[in-house]
Amino acid sequence: MTITETPSLPNGVNVEALLGAREAFKGDTSLTKFTWRARNEWVDGTHSRTTIEDFYGVGDEQSHDGPQVHDADHPALFAAEDNGSTPVEFVLHALAACLTGGIAAVAANRGITLNSVTAVIEGDMDIQGILGMDPEVRNGYSAVRVSFEVDADASADDIEALVKQSQKRSAVYDILTGVTPVEIGVTAK
Amino acid sequence: MTITETPSLPNGVNVEALLGAREAFKGDTSLTKFTWRARNEWVDGTHSRTTIEDFYGVGDEQSHDGPQVHDADHPALFAAEDNGSTPVEFVLHALAACLTGGIAAVAANRGITLNSVTAVIEGDMDIQGILGMDPEVRNGYSAVRVSFEVDADASADDIEALVKQSQKRSAVYDILTGVTPVEIGVTAK
Repeated sequence: MTITETPSLPNGVNVEALLGAREAFKGDTSLTKFTWRARNEWVDGTHSRTTIEDFYGVGDEQSHDGPQVHDADHPALFAAEDNGSTPVEFVLHALAACLTGGIAAVAANRGITLNSVTAVIEGDMDIQGILGMDPEVRNGYSAVRVSFEVDADASADDIEALVKQSQKRSAVYDILTGVTPVEIGVTAK
Repeated sequence: MTITETPSLPNGVNVEALLGAREAFKGDTSLTKFTWRARNEWVDGTHSRTTIEDFYGVGDEQSHDGPQVHDADHPALFAAEDNGSTPVEFVLHALAACLTGGIAAVAANRGITLNSVTAVIEGDMDIQGILGMDPEVRNGYSAVRVSFEVDADASADDIEALVKQSQKRSAVYDILTGVTPVEIGVTAK
């Protein structure tokens, strides 16, 4: 895997490094096994704080440049303190960011220059589910809609194909539309 | 729905207001239909920025106390700038925060005083999926594990029951373990 000293960075994406990594991984797929991590601590009420710093991948422990801290809470409407976005809003953020990062990477790979990408994302939820009012109503989103507006040096068809390819390779899109096994354990201290 | 002027707030949760809201909603379930929203803007490379401010619920437009801004990016290991947590780490944050907020609310409702709640959450992902190396490998998490440590004035059994009830009513747990329809549209600008 060779990275030139001054790689060209279309849309700010280091395409050469990404393609090089893919080639390198073909020789040893143990390198592609990642474990992402987060540590959450209850603060008060429905307010909690997550610290994200380290993860495992490419055969070793890795870390971000420094700890990344995110607060979550419920809004005042739920008689809470609004000390952060709600967990379900963070899911929308994750989906939008995953698709947008993918659009930039795919565009770079296809030689398309992006001028701007914006998305409005909405999720419908009947809170009868989380309030335990009706067992027929699910707790999560009944539907999620993402509306992109993309300004790029490409035809409308090519722009649509960009978004489709990003969707096809998106981890968070797959997490929402597929089923993920979640195991929850507890230790009483 | 009556809230006393100085409500008791076990674990900082306004239980009376939540139970009152549930009663009020029984008379008009149009009030329980929520739409959560996020607006995302591409910055550079895989870096994007989400603003969360308004949502719809209880029959009207609502808003947070102010705009909440979250940056997402890929780490340096992916030849990116590490300007924020990755989208898939935000999913872990969302799940942990949802379960922790729920534990506080359920504990308050059951008269259990929490001293501390911490969670370590991990998600396994084979990046052969997102890199398009193997169509048999999914893009998202193959498994997610959450390990809570709870210090509360309650027995180990009661603490375990708390976590189980939070899981049962968690929106993000349901989003991960269930299937959510996601619709993605694009307008070329």
